[in-house]
Amino acid sequence: MKITASAPGKLMLFGEHAVVHQHPCLVTAVDLRIQVTVEKIDAPMIFIETPLLSPKEQSFSLPLNELFNDKLLHPHTKFIVASIRKVFSRYNIHQGLKIQSSGPINSFGLGSSSAVTVATIFALITLFDIAIKKQQIFDLAYSAVMEVQTVGSGFDVASSTFGGTLFYLPTQKIETLNVDHLPLVIAYSGEKVSTTNLVQEVEQLRSQFPEILDLVFKAIGKITSSARIAMLQNNWKTAGNLANINQGLLESLGVSTPTLNKPITAARLSGSFGAKLSGAGGGDCMFAIVDEQTRSRVEAAIESSGAQVLHLKTNTEGVRLEPELA
Amino acid sequence: MKITASAPGKLMLFGEHAVVHQHPCLVTAVDLRIQVTVEKIDAPMIFIETPLLSPKEQSFSLPLNELFNDKLLHPHTKFIVASIRKVFSRYNIHQGLKIQSSGPINSFGLGSSSAVTVATIFALITLFDIAIKKQQIFDLAYSAVMEVQTVGSGFDVASSTFGGTLFYLPTQKIETLNVDHLPLVIAYSGEKVSTTNLVQEVEQLRSQFPEILDLVFKAIGKITSSARIAMLQNNWKTAGNLANINQGLLESLGVSTPTLNKPITAARLSGSFGAKLSGAGGGDCMFAIVDEQTRSRVEAAIESSGAQVLHLKTNTEGVRLEPELA
Repeated sequence: MKITASAPGKLMLFGEHAVVHQHPCLVTAVDLRIQVTVEKIDAPMIFIETPLLSPKEQSFSLPLNELFNDKLLHPHTKFIVASIRKVFSRYNIHQGLKIQSSGPINSFGLGSSSAVTVATIFALITLFDIAIKKQQIFDLAYSAVMEVQTVGSGFDVASSTFGGTLFYLPTQKIETLNVDHLPLVIAYSGEKVSTTNLVQEVEQLRSQFPEILDLVFKAIGKITSSARIAMLQNNWKTAGNLANINQGLLESLGVSTPTLNKPITAARLSGSFGAKLSGAGGGDCMFAIVDEQTRSRVEAAIESSGAQVLHLKTNTEGVRLEPELA
Repeated sequence: MKITASAPGKLMLFGEHAVVHQHPCLVTAVDLRIQVTVEKIDAPMIFIETPLLSPKEQSFSLPLNELFNDKLLHPHTKFIVASIRKVFSRYNIHQGLKIQSSGPINSFGLGSSSAVTVATIFALITLFDIAIKKQQIFDLAYSAVMEVQTVGSGFDVASSTFGGTLFYLPTQKIETLNVDHLPLVIAYSGEKVSTTNLVQEVEQLRSQFPEILDLVFKAIGKITSSARIAMLQNNWKTAGNLANINQGLLESLGVSTPTLNKPITAARLSGSFGAKLSGAGGGDCMFAIVDEQTRSRVEAAIESSGAQVLHLKTNTEGVRLEPELA
């Protein structure tokens, strides 16, 4: 029996970097889904196939009795291996597996290791007939992610698990926002980035100017709380103003770039309510908040500035089972 | 007998907008000086000539017994009239006067109504043989400025009075920084602005998001205090980092513009320690902090971005008497 689960990518709306310091963030799930298919095999082995492994590498395999000794260094399989370990140790399972993952070739920094982790865990607990709640999937997936990367606030794990649009306060609160539709234009700057490096650069700045950066993080936290209320009221003009303020604070942290600033400026000048980068910065994506009258004008301005508008569905479903395709 | 006094223009270094809310700022005097010449006349009249009056307007005149009834609405003479009133009422003077002011035709937003006010007051107290300290000149000039514009933190009055480079904490502290030389590249963006409008726009944003903006102002205050220490230690690299953080916070207040961002980005990419706008924003000037090895490269990059490098002396002398030229 094969089980396939899928989990969405995520778009950070407000609060990036501050969420690392226990302030809230707002994040929405996007329909760049990662699929993970799991099946039991008789051999005492773990086989993993992902489209990210090069043809030379073929597939990744690991003897079952080496599962807990893996160093979790292989970039394309480490989150899957960590997920198997969490499920196996939590539920005392010892079983050979074949695992295949697939998903969009380019995820524009919006797909995430969290999505593959959450999908793997949900597929596995279904395969082994374990009934658990989404909160427990989140807990298992978050502990798997933390085993691999040791730091992380968990907002991306929450988004992949619960989907929708979340107000996420680390270790305290995961609230699903009752919003229908987010009037966003999302665009990719063309620059690829390493989130880890950017978080480290901000940490370095914080070690130099702790009082200043803590005030900036606190202000970002307040922006996020205000944006939550604005979004619940469908007050997108206010949300746009808050996006602009948030972007300035991200500039002060040094994580915006000229390549991101171009579409952000273009979006503001073409009549959007506001615009900011999304995620760790240094490149990847930005978004603008628009009304339907200005959408096409803002999209054209963003494209003219050199960025690529992405037509993505936001506020989408969290982790779920997929019908067997094969 | 004619008496001529002159007072310098000012370049805001750190803390603009936050200083309106009782946080400190750092400001340096620049050699765009305003000269004011005063002489007694027999007629019971006040005659004012400034190069800013158009040929049609000829000179501005006011009967002496109307001095305290003037509505202070004439843009090119109101600060002079207010200055005369403060000196006359404080020292019980009643005397016909001829006053001439002159100065740079284009002051790039760095010259100020404060300079003409301070120079007028110093010329008058010299004319009437009154010996007062600079702090009293500041007090008189600040009250004259406040009579005209009703709001203002006074940092520009302090800079025109004391000169040098000041750490200015409204109503509490005016400290002259013991620095020799500021390694700055100053440039004019080409955009003219109204400071009053920008301060009002920030006030409007603050009335919408008071908690957020108060945190931003507080962070700017901390930046200014840290920059004071960095400058006293000639640590221009740290001052540059702080300029970059400050610029982000000014972006969050919505007062930077694409025309300002171009030379700021150019300065950063060409090896300066940091760069920010100077003053209320919306246009006018920016500056970069450089070392002497990178100066010419940064200047060239700023010019290429479309801004005009200004070769101004900073940290210059405050109000002073000038030898009679005529």
